Amino acid sequence: METVPSLERFRRRDWLKTEPEGSVRFALVGLGSFTREWIIPALERSTYNEATCLVSGDAEKADRIAEEHGVGSAVTYEGFLDGTADDSYDAVYIATPNALHLPYAEHAAANGKHVLCEKPMEATADRAREMVETCEAAGVTLMVAYRLQFNPTVRWVRSLLREGTLGMPVHVRGAMSQDIFEAISPDPNQWRLDPELSGGAALADLGLYPLNTSRFLLDADPTEVTAQVSNRHDAFEGVDESIAFTVSYDDGTVGAYTASQRSDVTSHLHVTGTAGTVRLEPTFFGEVEATLQTDEGTLTVEPGEENEMIEEFDYFASRVLTDVDVAPDGRHGLEDMRTIERLYRDAGLDLG
Amino acid sequence: METVPSLERFRRRDWLKTEPEGSVRFALVGLGSFTREWIIPALERSTYNEATCLVSGDAEKADRIAEEHGVGSAVTYEGFLDGTADDSYDAVYIATPNALHLPYAEHAAANGKHVLCEKPMEATADRAREMVETCEAAGVTLMVAYRLQFNPTVRWVRSLLREGTLGMPVHVRGAMSQDIFEAISPDPNQWRLDPELSGGAALADLGLYPLNTSRFLLDADPTEVTAQVSNRHDAFEGVDESIAFTVSYDDGTVGAYTASQRSDVTSHLHVTGTAGTVRLEPTFFGEVEATLQTDEGTLTVEPGEENEMIEEFDYFASRVLTDVDVAPDGRHGLEDMRTIERLYRDAGLDLG
Repeated sequence: METVPSLERFRRRDWLKTEPEGSVRFALVGLGSFTREWIIPALERSTYNEATCLVSGDAEKADRIAEEHGVGSAVTYEGFLDGTADDSYDAVYIATPNALHLPYAEHAAANGKHVLCEKPMEATADRAREMVETCEAAGVTLMVAYRLQFNPTVRWVRSLLREGTLGMPVHVRGAMSQDIFEAISPDPNQWRLDPELSGGAALADLGLYPLNTSRFLLDADPTEVTAQVSNRHDAFEGVDESIAFTVSYDDGTVGAYTASQRSDVTSHLHVTGTAGTVRLEPTFFGEVEATLQTDEGTLTVEPGEENEMIEEFDYFASRVLTDVDVAPDGRHGLEDMRTIERLYRDAGLDLG
Repeated sequence: METVPSLERFRRRDWLKTEPEGSVRFALVGLGSFTREWIIPALERSTYNEATCLVSGDAEKADRIAEEHGVGSAVTYEGFLDGTADDSYDAVYIATPNALHLPYAEHAAANGKHVLCEKPMEATADRAREMVETCEAAGVTLMVAYRLQFNPTVRWVRSLLREGTLGMPVHVRGAMSQDIFEAISPDPNQWRLDPELSGGAALADLGLYPLNTSRFLLDADPTEVTAQVSNRHDAFEGVDESIAFTVSYDDGTVGAYTASQRSDVTSHLHVTGTAGTVRLEPTFFGEVEATLQTDEGTLTVEPGEENEMIEEFDYFASRVLTDVDVAPDGRHGLEDMRTIERLYRDAGLDLG
């Protein structure tokens, strides 16, 4: 397809405007499997970052992992909030249970440290708003870790949409689901199923991916939303086991989505316009493959070598080191928190 | 996959219980392109039917097409309602604009003729209810022409779901869209875009396919529904150009759907359960292909030789000739009409 923009520009870090000097020293707060298996290795391979402090509820665990990876500082959550490790880091990556994000962001901001916070930002929109306001008042950078936004294939698809390759976007269709008892933990009391700690299960943990990636691709925000929840298993009392939802975007596109924590795996995002369809499939659990279909034919993009986490952290560092604003920033993440709450309200789910 | 039921049973007319004697003589009311290009050829190849009367607003057109296909009787709409052709048919197939279905069904019922009515049944649920009650009072058979329900691959997928091949169904995702100005007519004043004649555009004409096929596959009915409409083109004033909607079913499955009359073509229905996913894609515009994915592997069913319309008409005739109830009957279609109205109401669309 001659009229399609090249993917190469996005594989060569289209976001890198100015080569930064130095690097960002990161404190990693929360040493769950995602931090251990994805973030620490990503930082080891990143260009502008290093992990210099590990923070866990379990002092022994923090020490052990720090030693394994040659990280200089290891502290408990309490030690971190007491300021014990303040000199060891320039920025904090927060990957605790959702309802515990805010205090670590507040401590970082109060000490002039920048914040990269996992999604969803917090358990409630109110607490996410507090995080935004605290970081703004302190003049520190706050970014939300929407890793898909740093995937070169996703960024390329966004450029297709901007250049009108699909005509006018009409529909977005997204799905993300897993069996949480197989994929994460068999424990029915895990924090992701506790409404106070998580702020929701299927939508807040999974459905947020296709929702946020839609916003990114369309460069549009939700106007109206509707949702329906289906709960069958006792472990999901107070949170959503499965959800279907629709979102109208301010460009006139309408989206239909599904997410579930007790389902066969699904992972895709399709955008259909007046002149074609692009399918990102799989999308959300790692490798991203894209298929573009228009009157000109079909173009398939195989998963590249890129690592979303390396891209995300290097982007963040490049902005912090050159004092440039980030996207997706805290206000972008806060918009999602508000949308999540509106969707749960529409579904009649009371998260307390 | 050893545990998967065989498709062959469904390709050999699983619905044929008793070989009927004789055949059903059909009056075809409405000679639009679907009747001419699909129904007349299907009846010529069917086992238990023949077209014996053609009915059109245009007498010359009816005569010409009757002569081309060797059909004995041709009358105008007025002539049909006057009873001119009553002796020439045993059943009526109604494919006029939606808001004109009722009078032909009433005339047929009053004369003891059976009714096969295109979907949607009428322009409003009230008029569909009248049709149901009229046919019930007259003791004639009323079936709604949901052709997908007679596709052997769709019936096979239904059996997979019944036998638990996917575990418990969790989500259904469906999409059907076209550019009506390319696919049907460039006329912005065509009846499908007139709310009084059509009763809706994207949902009533297209979205109804994935909705009804979901009901058939799950053997479940909608409980709660939500919808959002997006209209951009002037021609869609009063009807829906594009729609996204969700449906909760009484088995706990939730569905997310999109439909559009001004979009690139989409045509699929996916069911994800706790143990696998089945994708019907393409589904709604002719050929049906199925892909089943479970832990056992992937099974793809290529489109068969079957013709949905022949199956649909022969099924109808087999039931009428042996005096057995049909499915999908009028009450099944009426349920869809009520769901359509609820969806439009939720979307804030006022069809007058």
